[in-house]
Amino acid sequence: MRLAAGVEYDGTRFFGWQRQRQSPTVQASVEAALARVADHPVTVHCAGRTDTGVHARCQVIHFETEAERSERSWVLGANTVLHEGATLLWVRQVDDRFHARFSATRRRYRYRILNRWVRPAIELGRMSWIRHPLDAGRMHEAAQALLGEHDFSSFRARGCQAKSPVRTVHSVAVSRSGCEVRIDIEANAFVYHMVRNIAGALIAVGDDRRPISWIESLLEARDRTQAGITAPADGLTFMYPTYPDFPELPIREEVGFPGEETVADR
Amino acid sequence: MRLAAGVEYDGTRFFGWQRQRQSPTVQASVEAALARVADHPVTVHCAGRTDTGVHARCQVIHFETEAERSERSWVLGANTVLHEGATLLWVRQVDDRFHARFSATRRRYRYRILNRWVRPAIELGRMSWIRHPLDAGRMHEAAQALLGEHDFSSFRARGCQAKSPVRTVHSVAVSRSGCEVRIDIEANAFVYHMVRNIAGALIAVGDDRRPISWIESLLEARDRTQAGITAPADGLTFMYPTYPDFPELPIREEVGFPGEETVADR
Repeated sequence: MRLAAGVEYDGTRFFGWQRQRQSPTVQASVEAALARVADHPVTVHCAGRTDTGVHARCQVIHFETEAERSERSWVLGANTVLHEGATLLWVRQVDDRFHARFSATRRRYRYRILNRWVRPAIELGRMSWIRHPLDAGRMHEAAQALLGEHDFSSFRARGCQAKSPVRTVHSVAVSRSGCEVRIDIEANAFVYHMVRNIAGALIAVGDDRRPISWIESLLEARDRTQAGITAPADGLTFMYPTYPDFPELPIREEVGFPGEETVADR
Repeated sequence: MRLAAGVEYDGTRFFGWQRQRQSPTVQASVEAALARVADHPVTVHCAGRTDTGVHARCQVIHFETEAERSERSWVLGANTVLHEGATLLWVRQVDDRFHARFSATRRRYRYRILNRWVRPAIELGRMSWIRHPLDAGRMHEAAQALLGEHDFSSFRARGCQAKSPVRTVHSVAVSRSGCEVRIDIEANAFVYHMVRNIAGALIAVGDDRRPISWIESLLEARDRTQAGITAPADGLTFMYPTYPDFPELPIREEVGFPGEETVADR
């Protein structure tokens, strides 16, 4: 039988998502915890792999098991043995056609910037830091050029394994609240380092080094060397994927930073 | 000359505020950083000492120095060498009558609870965790009994060095936003573990183990053994002190969790 699960993790505690020689990784930690509950080896697939330092509010995974456990037992049992930097949010039995990666039609990320002249202490590793004042209004206006289907070669890092650089951005918003500037972006999928490269370019617009029209010019250039720096991983959080064919998954209810209204509250 | 400064710190990185044998402590770290800038030993005094695990958004300190530096140089120089779990927010020269502790007429704390059925990952160490649903409205109503001048013996831990258990609570509010329940409380001063003991009692009201009237009964009992558990340190943040005679200090402008409006924004 196939099970899906939501996973929250603190990216500072892991060497990224994917199982590899360096440890711990989120994948290896989650697989080990689920194997303890299942009493057999478990392989998990995720909606969107994340790099070292990148957080997730609701990464979604699926895995196969023969073990008969209640959904509650899966969550509580796995969390008892799981690395403390990650937590299972829910588990649901799903149809065999469900695939965490291929069934997802959208992914949402948030990039969080602590925008003040002194470095972070409480938010160290959880937000990136820009000391020069950012104009979130300018950044928002510039970001609207990203909407729709485009060739994102200018925002695609070397080593990207995708065949095509074309992606569709469904929404992008830049907003300020206190000393936090956040970039919320949702697309069908993302090329490698796309959100961090967009964040780096938007920061250059926000601090007036570049004009608002620069983002549109970059898109048209289809040239990574023109878009400038990749913003650091600490500011990035994978928020959640969307599965229109599997509305029973409790994804949006569980997501959101504490202290914010959840999607379900709205 | 006397200087005042604001300090933010992540309580998980220190053995509390006060200089002692275990290290690092916030006090010893800040003193060492300021001594490097001053080129002489520095002793700091703070508005409110905090225990291991307790965070601060704007702790206020003062110290004496003969060194002539710009306020900007103090901040940047100290932060360059300061432990990464703490950051100086600002430095201002103040009148010799200013004392970080004795000039403060109010202190504000926030107690943050992640209220969901699974344990925290991203917020581990930064919020405390209550799995049973809490009714923030009940908690808020119960908490209003704390307003005004009372004998807080029921909420005073053993080892408290204060002469009197009488304190004046100026405001207390319990609110929910998404999966976060927060307790904001301001008083002239606090007896030892007062906020954590109040949080522990309010949680028992919020999950229906105790009636709303229980908080008032506890106050009247003046008996620590009746009030139950002390809530853990991770949820507690010292927000800021108030100095009515020194309005030039940039305290309220600098404070607030990123993503919230600051006091100055309102």
